Amino acid sequence: MLRSSRPSINLIRQVGTIAIQEPAQPSVKTDIPGPRSKLLHENLKRVHQAPSVKFFVDYESSFGNYLVDADGNALLDSFMQISSIPIGYNHPELVALHSDPRFITAAVSRPALGNFPRTDFADLIANSLISIAPPGLRHVQTMMDGTGANENAIKQSFIRYQTLKRGGPPTPKDLESCMNQELPGTPKLSVLGFQGSFHGRSLGMLSVTRSKAIHKVDIPAFDWPIAKFPRYKYPLVKHENYNKKQDEESLEDVKKHFIARKKEKRDVAALIVEPIQSEGGDFHASNEYFHELQKLCKEHGVTFIVDEVQTGGGASGHFWAHEKWGLPEAPDIVTFSKKALIGGYYYKDELTVNEPYRIFNTWMGEPTKLVILEKVVEIIKRDRLVEQTAKVGAHLYKSLEDLERHFPNLVSNVRGQGNLCAFDLPDAAKRDKLLAVALKYGLHVGGCGDLTVRFRPALIFEQKHADIATEILAQSLKKL
Amino acid sequence: MLRSSRPSINLIRQVGTIAIQEPAQPSVKTDIPGPRSKLLHENLKRVHQAPSVKFFVDYESSFGNYLVDADGNALLDSFMQISSIPIGYNHPELVALHSDPRFITAAVSRPALGNFPRTDFADLIANSLISIAPPGLRHVQTMMDGTGANENAIKQSFIRYQTLKRGGPPTPKDLESCMNQELPGTPKLSVLGFQGSFHGRSLGMLSVTRSKAIHKVDIPAFDWPIAKFPRYKYPLVKHENYNKKQDEESLEDVKKHFIARKKEKRDVAALIVEPIQSEGGDFHASNEYFHELQKLCKEHGVTFIVDEVQTGGGASGHFWAHEKWGLPEAPDIVTFSKKALIGGYYYKDELTVNEPYRIFNTWMGEPTKLVILEKVVEIIKRDRLVEQTAKVGAHLYKSLEDLERHFPNLVSNVRGQGNLCAFDLPDAAKRDKLLAVALKYGLHVGGCGDLTVRFRPALIFEQKHADIATEILAQSLKKL
Repeated sequence: MLRSSRPSINLIRQVGTIAIQEPAQPSVKTDIPGPRSKLLHENLKRVHQAPSVKFFVDYESSFGNYLVDADGNALLDSFMQISSIPIGYNHPELVALHSDPRFITAAVSRPALGNFPRTDFADLIANSLISIAPPGLRHVQTMMDGTGANENAIKQSFIRYQTLKRGGPPTPKDLESCMNQELPGTPKLSVLGFQGSFHGRSLGMLSVTRSKAIHKVDIPAFDWPIAKFPRYKYPLVKHENYNKKQDEESLEDVKKHFIARKKEKRDVAALIVEPIQSEGGDFHASNEYFHELQKLCKEHGVTFIVDEVQTGGGASGHFWAHEKWGLPEAPDIVTFSKKALIGGYYYKDELTVNEPYRIFNTWMGEPTKLVILEKVVEIIKRDRLVEQTAKVGAHLYKSLEDLERHFPNLVSNVRGQGNLCAFDLPDAAKRDKLLAVALKYGLHVGGCGDLTVRFRPALIFEQKHADIATEILAQSLKKL
Repeated sequence: MLRSSRPSINLIRQVGTIAIQEPAQPSVKTDIPGPRSKLLHENLKRVHQAPSVKFFVDYESSFGNYLVDADGNALLDSFMQISSIPIGYNHPELVALHSDPRFITAAVSRPALGNFPRTDFADLIANSLISIAPPGLRHVQTMMDGTGANENAIKQSFIRYQTLKRGGPPTPKDLESCMNQELPGTPKLSVLGFQGSFHGRSLGMLSVTRSKAIHKVDIPAFDWPIAKFPRYKYPLVKHENYNKKQDEESLEDVKKHFIARKKEKRDVAALIVEPIQSEGGDFHASNEYFHELQKLCKEHGVTFIVDEVQTGGGASGHFWAHEKWGLPEAPDIVTFSKKALIGGYYYKDELTVNEPYRIFNTWMGEPTKLVILEKVVEIIKRDRLVEQTAKVGAHLYKSLEDLERHFPNLVSNVRGQGNLCAFDLPDAAKRDKLLAVALKYGLHVGGCGDLTVRFRPALIFEQKHADIATEILAQSLKKL
């Protein structure tokens, strides 16, 4: 196999015009979107829906923590394609993979992974996903994206629930009745989600998603219950009692739904929860809360699914945000996508599905992404980037607290885990204005929920980048 | 941009060990799965679920119409990764794309396409998907895979249905009520599917899938109706009256469901149908049938979705199998994936969704696939490969009819469109045995439904490949 472990200028040159250096600081020459972005937007609308497009990006010119937009504006990117770029744009060691035959053949001769996998599939998985598996989990299932990850995690929970109930695989009666979508083959099972959660945009996943109305409106949904999620006040030490009460109320609500649904014979088979409700507004909860949540699930025979699609992959100061909780045992399932480059989920051994075609999909993931992820994981470990997110995140957190002190009427509820930091503005209009002004000064940072600014930088985000970001935020807040 | 329009031996050599030639004929040296495949299967099970794995493939050694398995067996592949490889393994002109900077940056700096598209996104779409758009359709929406394509096609139908009903975008009352999954924001709408259909494995898509119980069992489903689909007898000319009655019964059933659901205030918003029910058993229907089906949908205000995930991309003798029907106007939506390399759907202009984030997904498709598809489309057009599927398909069809004459007690119901040919065996055991014996002789062909053998070759499948295939089938049938 032809594999290069270090970037070679030669290889980079070979592929032409790809940037190989990060700018020292942002530089903005036009409005954003600028004239070229606007023109490209018009062109795109002629062939493809584009109502969510913000601006166009020149990916060949982007590098590291900086993206260069279609108008040549260089922006410090602390949002990174909705948290999905692990080690920055055009990392030279990733660009060098273009001459790896595994990468090329996987791209042009894509396998149906569930039927006819590549001979190196197990190795690729072992070197990438398994080498960073959450403690206590040793098996993984690949899928195409985060929605597919959550859909199949929930399917696997349903299969487990019915298998345990029956004491074995489906009976002929199950197989017959499910073709008419009748009991017992098509069970009336529920999934419990949380107010403010986001788990994807398929019909099934929208049924447990409650972040924003625009995602859900006009789409029929499964009649599944939804529980309150804690809404903390910050700083935590000042609101200990209030926040504890938030935990208790949420746990009480979860328990209530478990019991009620059991009575209605629509048992909750799975509970799905984000370590940080991201799209919903960067809402955190305490380690103790998640311990109790896992305990409740165990008591009620409910599969405990932790959705790390946005929080996983190293940005939280751990490879997986739930590691911080120090649970007595692993969650039953941990789902991922985004920074993991491929969708999928880790699951406990006892959840393994033994019958063919129950968890399946033609592509079932994309092996080129595993070739890239193998190298990404090598770099993350070698360069100690998870440790870096803890350190840089702590620095960013402190800088945001300084902002809060300087702008007490504008900035509140500073919070974070690793470099997944956030803070609130007094209202949506001010939040949106802040994002727009910061962009003008060269900082790309995200919004979420109604009031919140969220950081989702790459793992290579350094203290110097955090300092530029907070400097720009300070400048921008003065304009509000 | 560095783009090579012809394969260069140099470039191929550069990437090492990738095969550049097709074997003259199959060669099988071991059982399939052979000892190495079996060992790799054990290894894979240690890290990943693998109950559907058939054998492992050495993709670096596979070329054209031939795959080489982990044990060095060279198989003529007329199944092509469940119909998903358009122009064979490791096409040299696709391998050469590895040095195209668009391909590399798209792979290592993957955009959130809905928010921050590449500057060349519209061009890539125009050169690939739009250049092969079905007649009458000018807009496309990319997604990750076939399931995501169908999910979002159906979401778009729901949005259209409610928008027309309201006469505009969602009202505050819709937005408020949908957060509690209550009327009017969360409507009780239905999708009508067909007995025997397959549209994906998400919770939503399983609700309109009725191909096999093992996909559906233990998974809760939306309470959507299902209509009878024609089941023809062959040869068609001999069973004209019977088959016409099949059409009528199906159309009657469709109409019945439209009316019943309207009465129940669970209106059918969309109907989804495959041109050839593939996974379900390669069931075809007449041009007249589909004309009537479209008419019925129009009369009842139902979005008419044609699922071309398996049939699209050129294998049917047209780029899209539904072109054969000669409809008076385009279907409302045509979904695709597999041979299109990327999931997505074409839609009529009036279905465009104008509000942001209603049809959205972080990745929303994979631009590396568009770079490859652009070249695939160029090659298909240049080499007249769609015409080739019509010609080779007709030859294959005739050869299968010869088989039927030689083995009248074994082979029946020969049918096909382009190279998407199929025939039936008397029972599942004989069908499975035929597939196994043919594999031993070096032919990889697929099964579907209970009794059916289906061909799903690449577009580069030639008469000589069809002859080898039918020769092996003849040999194999003798062993039954």
